[in-house]
Amino acid sequence: MTDIAFQEYYPDELSHCYGCGRLNEDGLRITSFWEGDEGVCRFRPRPYHTGPPGYVYGGLIASLIDCHSTATASAAAYRRDGREPGTQPVPRYVTASLQVDYRKPTPIDGVLEVRAHVTEMSGRKTIVSSTLSVDGIVCAEGRVVAVEMPETMRKTGEPQE
Amino acid sequence: MTDIAFQEYYPDELSHCYGCGRLNEDGLRITSFWEGDEGVCRFRPRPYHTGPPGYVYGGLIASLIDCHSTATASAAAYRRDGREPGTQPVPRYVTASLQVDYRKPTPIDGVLEVRAHVTEMSGRKTIVSSTLSVDGIVCAEGRVVAVEMPETMRKTGEPQE
Repeated sequence: MTDIAFQEYYPDELSHCYGCGRLNEDGLRITSFWEGDEGVCRFRPRPYHTGPPGYVYGGLIASLIDCHSTATASAAAYRRDGREPGTQPVPRYVTASLQVDYRKPTPIDGVLEVRAHVTEMSGRKTIVSSTLSVDGIVCAEGRVVAVEMPETMRKTGEPQE
Repeated sequence: MTDIAFQEYYPDELSHCYGCGRLNEDGLRITSFWEGDEGVCRFRPRPYHTGPPGYVYGGLIASLIDCHSTATASAAAYRRDGREPGTQPVPRYVTASLQVDYRKPTPIDGVLEVRAHVTEMSGRKTIVSSTLSVDGIVCAEGRVVAVEMPETMRKTGEPQE
């Protein structure tokens, strides 16, 4: 495990995402790291991220799985290509498809741990499966089909303000 | 179409959801209405809801589809049972499974319109399919398997603070 998050390598113009952009001051600013072959993201929900009383809002769970999975796809592309993380160009992915199965209500007072692994890489497409757990209990499972970000989305731009 | 949102009928203790709770001051506070047989939700993203430059963050899209679909399931249960909306008990649903297919990048400077319809109701389960469009162009498609909220999640509680 290194102590540099996958998201630290994203170029500035692609670092305003509400879920994972380190430059989005209003956003979740999640961070993702390798632990062996798993991408791991830990996130403590804010009190207002509630769904039903005492439990996490499902949209937050979907958001974490989404952004962490595309981050893991990016980090996996470096590994696949034998490249040092952070070297240019940074591989960036967008989500073509997101599937979340909610297995149990997710308590809001714990740390959410998303563990992701790549199940397929072919051409521009990477499939990432994940679990979201609290205290070792799996509360949700995710599957993301990520595709390389089209050049047209990489345009330099100021954050949308 | 009536001018009372589905979410207005939710009991107070179930109205703190970040996505759809009218009592969550930090949340999205989406509203959903019938238009014929479709539940419709319109939402204008905030500038910080960006993903790639100029486009909406995918987690927001998933969140809207999630909360609007369970709201539509609730409203559909009233119709199925021939009950007047707002009468007690209010049917409330949670998401068992969420699928979102992102068809096109979603421009952030428009109004997102989610149109949902029930494709199956059986026992405690309701399946809701939806599209998310901007200016009539479908940018994402959703499918939610909603199930009636277990009694244990309906416990009266203060918002999680």
